[in-house]
Amino acid sequence: MNFCSACGKSVSRKIPLGDNVARFVCDSCQAIHYHNPKIVAGCIPEWEDQILLCRRAIEPKTGLWTFPAGFMEIGESTEQAAIRETKEEAQADVEITGLHAVLSLPHIGQVYMVFRGRMLTSAYEAGAESLEVGLFPLTAIPWSQIAFPVVREALRRYVDDVTAGRFQLHLASLSDRLPS
Amino acid sequence: MNFCSACGKSVSRKIPLGDNVARFVCDSCQAIHYHNPKIVAGCIPEWEDQILLCRRAIEPKTGLWTFPAGFMEIGESTEQAAIRETKEEAQADVEITGLHAVLSLPHIGQVYMVFRGRMLTSAYEAGAESLEVGLFPLTAIPWSQIAFPVVREALRRYVDDVTAGRFQLHLASLSDRLPS
Repeated sequence: MNFCSACGKSVSRKIPLGDNVARFVCDSCQAIHYHNPKIVAGCIPEWEDQILLCRRAIEPKTGLWTFPAGFMEIGESTEQAAIRETKEEAQADVEITGLHAVLSLPHIGQVYMVFRGRMLTSAYEAGAESLEVGLFPLTAIPWSQIAFPVVREALRRYVDDVTAGRFQLHLASLSDRLPS
Repeated sequence: MNFCSACGKSVSRKIPLGDNVARFVCDSCQAIHYHNPKIVAGCIPEWEDQILLCRRAIEPKTGLWTFPAGFMEIGESTEQAAIRETKEEAQADVEITGLHAVLSLPHIGQVYMVFRGRMLTSAYEAGAESLEVGLFPLTAIPWSQIAFPVVREALRRYVDDVTAGRFQLHLASLSDRLPS
C-alpha cells in the first residue's frame, strides 16, 4: 500500500493510538487502513468412495491437483462459498455435510475452511480454472502432484478420518516450513 | 474506495476479465482491489459452571455485554486470535478446548469463529475496551443487554449444548433480519 484509498495521499506505517499493531495510516486524512486474513473456502466433494479433484489451469501451481477452493466473497456464507467454488472449478453440485478442517496459514494471512460435500449427481466437468477434473479413490490420490501443502494436509487428515471410520473437526495452524 | 492504493490514481467499479464480481480497478495501473470478508475470532471463557462476559467500553454498543471477540490479525491463527482477544478484553488466560460456532454474516462481510476456552486461573479484569468483566452462571446471562445478535445467537446455542450435555459445531448464516 502506497496511497490512501480514501483521499489518494501518501500513507505511512505506524501504530495508531490505542492499537498495538502497525497499520497504514494516511498522512493527510488520517484514515487507518486495516489488512486482515482472508478466508479460502474449500470443499472435498464425495461420490460413493471417491473424491473429486481438479487440475489447476491457473497460476500458481498450474498443472497440479487440488480440491475446489477459493477466496470467500462478501455477501455469501462460508458454506455458500465452498458450494460456489465447487460449481465454478468442477461444474459439480454439492450439499455441505460438515466442516472438515480450519487450517490457519499465519505467514500468508489465510485461513482455509475445508468442508465435506456430498455430490448431488455424478456430473462434473472442468471449469474455466481447471485443466481437468476427476474422481479419485482414496488409494489413488496423486500425492506427488498436489498444488499446495495446505491442500495435502487437509487431504491427509481426510483420508485418516475415512480410514478411522469417523469424522472430526481438524483445527491446526500450518507453518511456512511445511515441505511444499 | 476512491483511489488506487498502489499508484494513487482514480478507481472504477467494474467486472475484471475472467471474473464475475465487480471490483475496484485502477483506471491507470489496472490494479484490481479485492475486498473479502473478515474473521471475528471470539471465545466463550469457562470457569467451573460459569462463563466470562465483558461489558463494552467502546462503540458500537457501549455498555452492552459480549464474550471476548475481535478482528483476527495477519500473523496469527484463529485460535491465537481468540486467546489474544480474551487476554486484551478480559485479562484472562484461556486454552482453547474446541470450536463452538462458525456464524457467517453475509450482509456485512464477517465470519464469527467462536471457540470454547478453559480459563487457566480464575483471574480476570477489565481490559482497555471493557467497562467491566464478570463470571456469569448460565441462568444469569444478561440476555436483554447483549451487544450483537450474533453474540446472542452463539450464547443461546452454547447454553443449549450445555443443557443437552454435549457440544457440537454450529454452522449457520445469520441474516440481517435477526432482531437486534
